[in-house]
Amino acid sequence: MHEYQIGKAEKDAEYKLLNRAFDDLFPICRSITGLGIESSLNYFKNLMPLTIEQVKSGTTVFDWVTPASWLFKRARLWGPNGNLICDTEVNNLHVINYSEPVDREIDFADLRPHLYSIPHLPDAIPYVTSYYKRTWGFCLAHNILKSLPQGKYKVRIESSFDDEGGVPFGQCSLAGESKKEILLTSYLCHPSMANNELSGPLVLLGLYNRIKHWPKRRFTYRFVLNPETIGSLCYLYKYGDALKENLEAGLILTCLGGPKSKLRYKKSKRNDSLFDKLVSGASNEGWDFIDFTPLSGSDERQFCAPGFNLPMGQASRNSYGEYEGYHNSLDTKEYMSIDSLIRSIDEIEKLLIKAEYGAKVINLCPYGEPQLGKRGLYPTMNSYQHTQGSSDNALDSRQELNSILTILSEATGDVDMLDIAEKIGIDLVHLMPIIDKLEGHQLIQFNSSRVL
Amino acid sequence: MHEYQIGKAEKDAEYKLLNRAFDDLFPICRSITGLGIESSLNYFKNLMPLTIEQVKSGTTVFDWVTPASWLFKRARLWGPNGNLICDTEVNNLHVINYSEPVDREIDFADLRPHLYSIPHLPDAIPYVTSYYKRTWGFCLAHNILKSLPQGKYKVRIESSFDDEGGVPFGQCSLAGESKKEILLTSYLCHPSMANNELSGPLVLLGLYNRIKHWPKRRFTYRFVLNPETIGSLCYLYKYGDALKENLEAGLILTCLGGPKSKLRYKKSKRNDSLFDKLVSGASNEGWDFIDFTPLSGSDERQFCAPGFNLPMGQASRNSYGEYEGYHNSLDTKEYMSIDSLIRSIDEIEKLLIKAEYGAKVINLCPYGEPQLGKRGLYPTMNSYQHTQGSSDNALDSRQELNSILTILSEATGDVDMLDIAEKIGIDLVHLMPIIDKLEGHQLIQFNSSRVL
Amino acid sequence: MHEYQIGKAEKDAEYKLLNRAFDDLFPICRSITGLGIESSLNYFKNLMPLTIEQVKSGTTVFDWVTPASWLFKRARLWGPNGNLICDTEVNNLHVINYSEPVDREIDFADLRPHLYSIPHLPDAIPYVTSYYKRTWGFCLAHNILKSLPQGKYKVRIESSFDDEGGVPFGQCSLAGESKKEILLTSYLCHPSMANNELSGPLVLLGLYNRIKHWPKRRFTYRFVLNPETIGSLCYLYKYGDALKENLEAGLILTCLGGPKSKLRYKKSKRNDSLFDKLVSGASNEGWDFIDFTPLSGSDERQFCAPGFNLPMGQASRNSYGEYEGYHNSLDTKEYMSIDSLIRSIDEIEKLLIKAEYGAKVINLCPYGEPQLGKRGLYPTMNSYQHTQGSSDNALDSRQELNSILTILSEATGDVDMLDIAEKIGIDLVHLMPIIDKLEGHQLIQFNSSRVL
Repeated sequence: MHEYQIGKAEKDAEYKLLNRAFDDLFPICRSITGLGIESSLNYFKNLMPLTIEQVKSGTTVFDWVTPASWLFKRARLWGPNGNLICDTEVNNLHVINYSEPVDREIDFADLRPHLYSIPHLPDAIPYVTSYYKRTWGFCLAHNILKSLPQGKYKVRIESSFDDEGGVPFGQCSLAGESKKEILLTSYLCHPSMANNELSGPLVLLGLYNRIKHWPKRRFTYRFVLNPETIGSLCYLYKYGDALKENLEAGLILTCLGGPKSKLRYKKSKRNDSLFDKLVSGASNEGWDFIDFTPLSGSDERQFCAPGFNLPMGQASRNSYGEYEGYHNSLDTKEYMSIDSLIRSIDEIEKLLIKAEYGAKVINLCPYGEPQLGKRGLYPTMNSYQHTQGSSDNALDSRQELNSILTILSEATGDVDMLDIAEKIGIDLVHLMPIIDKLEGHQLIQFNSSRVL
Repeated sequence: MHEYQIGKAEKDAEYKLLNRAFDDLFPICRSITGLGIESSLNYFKNLMPLTIEQVKSGTTVFDWVTPASWLFKRARLWGPNGNLICDTEVNNLHVINYSEPVDREIDFADLRPHLYSIPHLPDAIPYVTSYYKRTWGFCLAHNILKSLPQGKYKVRIESSFDDEGGVPFGQCSLAGESKKEILLTSYLCHPSMANNELSGPLVLLGLYNRIKHWPKRRFTYRFVLNPETIGSLCYLYKYGDALKENLEAGLILTCLGGPKSKLRYKKSKRNDSLFDKLVSGASNEGWDFIDFTPLSGSDERQFCAPGFNLPMGQASRNSYGEYEGYHNSLDTKEYMSIDSLIRSIDEIEKLLIKAEYGAKVINLCPYGEPQLGKRGLYPTMNSYQHTQGSSDNALDSRQELNSILTILSEATGDVDMLDIAEKIGIDLVHLMPIIDKLEGHQLIQFNSSRVL
Repeated sequence: MHEYQIGKAEKDAEYKLLNRAFDDLFPICRSITGLGIESSLNYFKNLMPLTIEQVKSGTTVFDWVTPASWLFKRARLWGPNGNLICDTEVNNLHVINYSEPVDREIDFADLRPHLYSIPHLPDAIPYVTSYYKRTWGFCLAHNILKSLPQGKYKVRIESSFDDEGGVPFGQCSLAGESKKEILLTSYLCHPSMANNELSGPLVLLGLYNRIKHWPKRRFTYRFVLNPETIGSLCYLYKYGDALKENLEAGLILTCLGGPKSKLRYKKSKRNDSLFDKLVSGASNEGWDFIDFTPLSGSDERQFCAPGFNLPMGQASRNSYGEYEGYHNSLDTKEYMSIDSLIRSIDEIEKLLIKAEYGAKVINLCPYGEPQLGKRGLYPTMNSYQHTQGSSDNALDSRQELNSILTILSEATGDVDMLDIAEKIGIDLVHLMPIIDKLEGHQLIQFNSSRVL
């Protein structure tokens, strides 16, 4: 994997890029539509060649109808004495995401059902949304909430809905030898949260920059940023058929910036993607993994729905249930470190490189054994000395020859290099130079037809 | 299952019906053809809308030729002193079933090979048949047989054969939403035996009455009565192709009136029918089950023969080898109780209801997750309170939501609700209301194509 | 298996034939092409009706090009004093097989790289070849080699290459009821070695004579002799497509003359051939077996390459790594006994006979149970006595009936008699008469379509 590694200077530049992007993106009040998500996508477009498009509001997308664009400016709540209790210019979690406009006085008793807090995290502002049923409300620390007196409050939510808007998303790709694709996607719709929002897009950006500089790419790599759920549905609405044809494997990137030491992989529902096999096989002791479940998670719930059943897994570090800042104002850069993002990029890149070498492979000289001798891969003379192994590195050359013979014997086009490596008993990483050599001699080819 | 239950009055009527039918049918001297089977079928026709037809004598049915109708009146055997030893008006097991006519005097030595008894059950009259090789004979208690003196005996068997007759059978059905069928069959050919004859047809009758009153039927239910072996072959000869197309699962009903507490299910040879899975899965701890065997049993040997290989299992309580009255005059109502028949009806009905909900199911909104919120199946607001579960029955509503999400995720049309229930970890019975709800919202549909 | 057995006189004749053939063939200096292999094939042609053909030198055969014919006369090496050190008229292992012609004086220092010995077997002459890179050299005992003085040596290798020659092979067959074939092959190219050369062709000859006299043959048997590797590739080049269509199972015969008590079977790569199942199943406790490996072995490496993936296994007794004479002059008749060859013939013949009865079988009366009574295979009367079994051999007749019912139930055409025998729990050998009986009644037929 040497030739894939980047140097110290590139590492430093990567850190700076991610750190700055984080600071620029964190304050934006995103939602699944509207100004926040649009400016966020444009920010990424300056860093990677995204094509941004949208599915118009009011479009029937499978079982859903795309919502109007949320044009949000500011939300404030004043108490009976005129003191400012909530202001999205202080923290944009204060407003229920996708709130309708309001501008009026209201009794506390009527206001109360519109206020949200987390009793067991009394200092955190919760993140609350209501996309498909028009409402409004404020989120605030429980300690503040319980101190609010009776009386007249003033509510002003400056927002409007644009029915001519749409659900936007962006994508770009890096071409490889095969049109078979690896899809990397993350979501961009949560305002002002770090681990459960910006970690995913930033790791996506980091991977884009790494893969762009690889010495070669067998697969084509596609990078997608969309608002969660409705955004991935819109992406599938437009590109689902293409994915069905070309998708080799993919990853939803989410919650990748926490302190846990191991990444966790959630398998695709089909449980047979290249990543599924890689992570659950002997070759990837560095990751934890769990089976697919539709009960929780991110956009893999859409990609793996029975009508698509795409080979999409999910990668995360500290996820839902594993940190108290989930969906509230405690999810900040203090919890999510840039260093952790870079560790995630490193480990996911390693997985991708293994995947490059782990796909299904076909012997191009399948009729009997190829004549290895004429290619310098086999002794030309059958003498006792050779078969006994007299030189010091004889074991290594015998291991190489055995690996070659096993690869040629197993490479029917239906078996992947991961399984062949397991049969040989040598980790795929150590077989990479041999695979390169056999490819160079045109003795094997990675399968260009649907691999899994 | 509440709405499927019948009340006390119906229960009483059911008991009376079965009890009277038993008493009316027991004395009839049935065989595989002729007067006894014909009058028995007509008796049932008055209780359920059977269509009776026959395959004419002399027809080649697969590897067999259908026998002539046996027109039997009476058989008597007198001893040397003129004393009446056997008389079918006392017990119609006394004659070898399908005996040819005889009217002559005979020495005991010549008579002896025509006499059958059971030495280890010296008071029982055995049940002996010879359908495909013409002969005659008497069956009697071993205690009587061994006391018979030498001398001249008189034999009179009043019977004849009608080559213009045929092998009769009867069937009717109860239509359901799908043309996929559940087949319930029993045999009617043994004279004057209770558990191994009348229990099967009477349970069939009881099930017909129950299913007729169900609030709904997904499957179409077919009910068949035929003489054993040749009768099921004749049925398959005429309807085997239709069964191949539409049969979802079926049961041969036999020996269902004994005292054993558990029913026993014999699997179909294919071992993948809905009943096979139901009974051997976690969901049906109430039944015993065994694998298919061609070595013994009833008409499942014909239905499961390799040319048909139909998904037909067999249900029994005390069967061959499990009670000493098998195939002899000890098999009476004293052994077989009407209460036991009703317990069999109860348990088989329960199995059928589970089967109604256990078939393969397909998600009708398979492209991503359906928007459950607009159907009231999901909270419209993503707030902390909801996901934490604050109300008392939150666990139940979370279980329901999880069940819905799992059903939608798994319902590819290739997976049945039984397996989905196992995956969810909730017994199918408790999922029934959720299944009804998802069907009502047109989110799922039971698979109308071949299910298994 | 009685009717397959041969008598004492035939056994004696077999011994004499093999013994004489060994003595005639041992001294010939074979190679993969040229005079030695050609005269050896002609020798076999006198004993079995081989058709001999060749693939012309210079032909592209898959990834290979067939070499020129090696026209070899004699090779000698003289020492500085004119003493004769190596002479192929003493042992034709002295020359590197396929050596180019040389006739010159040479300093010991220049000669040394052309000399081969085995240090740990100091009295053995190694067997060394160089078919695809032109070179020359001598093989000699290490004890001789290390005593050679400096000085001028004289080398004379009388050989030439005929570009108009070819790679020869021979084949014949014994027709059976089906065109499905069993292929038996061995290789003929090693000079003057016994176990690893002549044992294989001689066992092939013995099996030809045995099978020719069998009372019947379901399969067609094909017998092939070719030089190793390039010869089997040439055979596959010409007949590989025919094999793909008709080959049921096959065996490479190699190293069958050693003292080990058990034969060893190396499975085909597909691991589902009739022989694979036979040898690894309960029914063949007499053989050892190993999985396929491409890392070592004989022509199964070609037959099982992914482009062919033929159901070819390999049979051996003492093989590579299991005797010190492997590929050197210690591999003589003293190590390999004719008696051991005959034991190999006996055991392989037994396997072949089992294979004759072990293939996939189809019930010709699959619609319900056939009427066994009319064929005398079932009691015509259903009486208590019969089912209780009153006669002494009742158990046997019940076992026979059960076997018949199980065979009929299982014989779908997709299941082989080996698996059915295992299901019945009776060794296939004991079922052979029942199989013959069911075949005779036209109730079953061995599957004429591709069996495995």
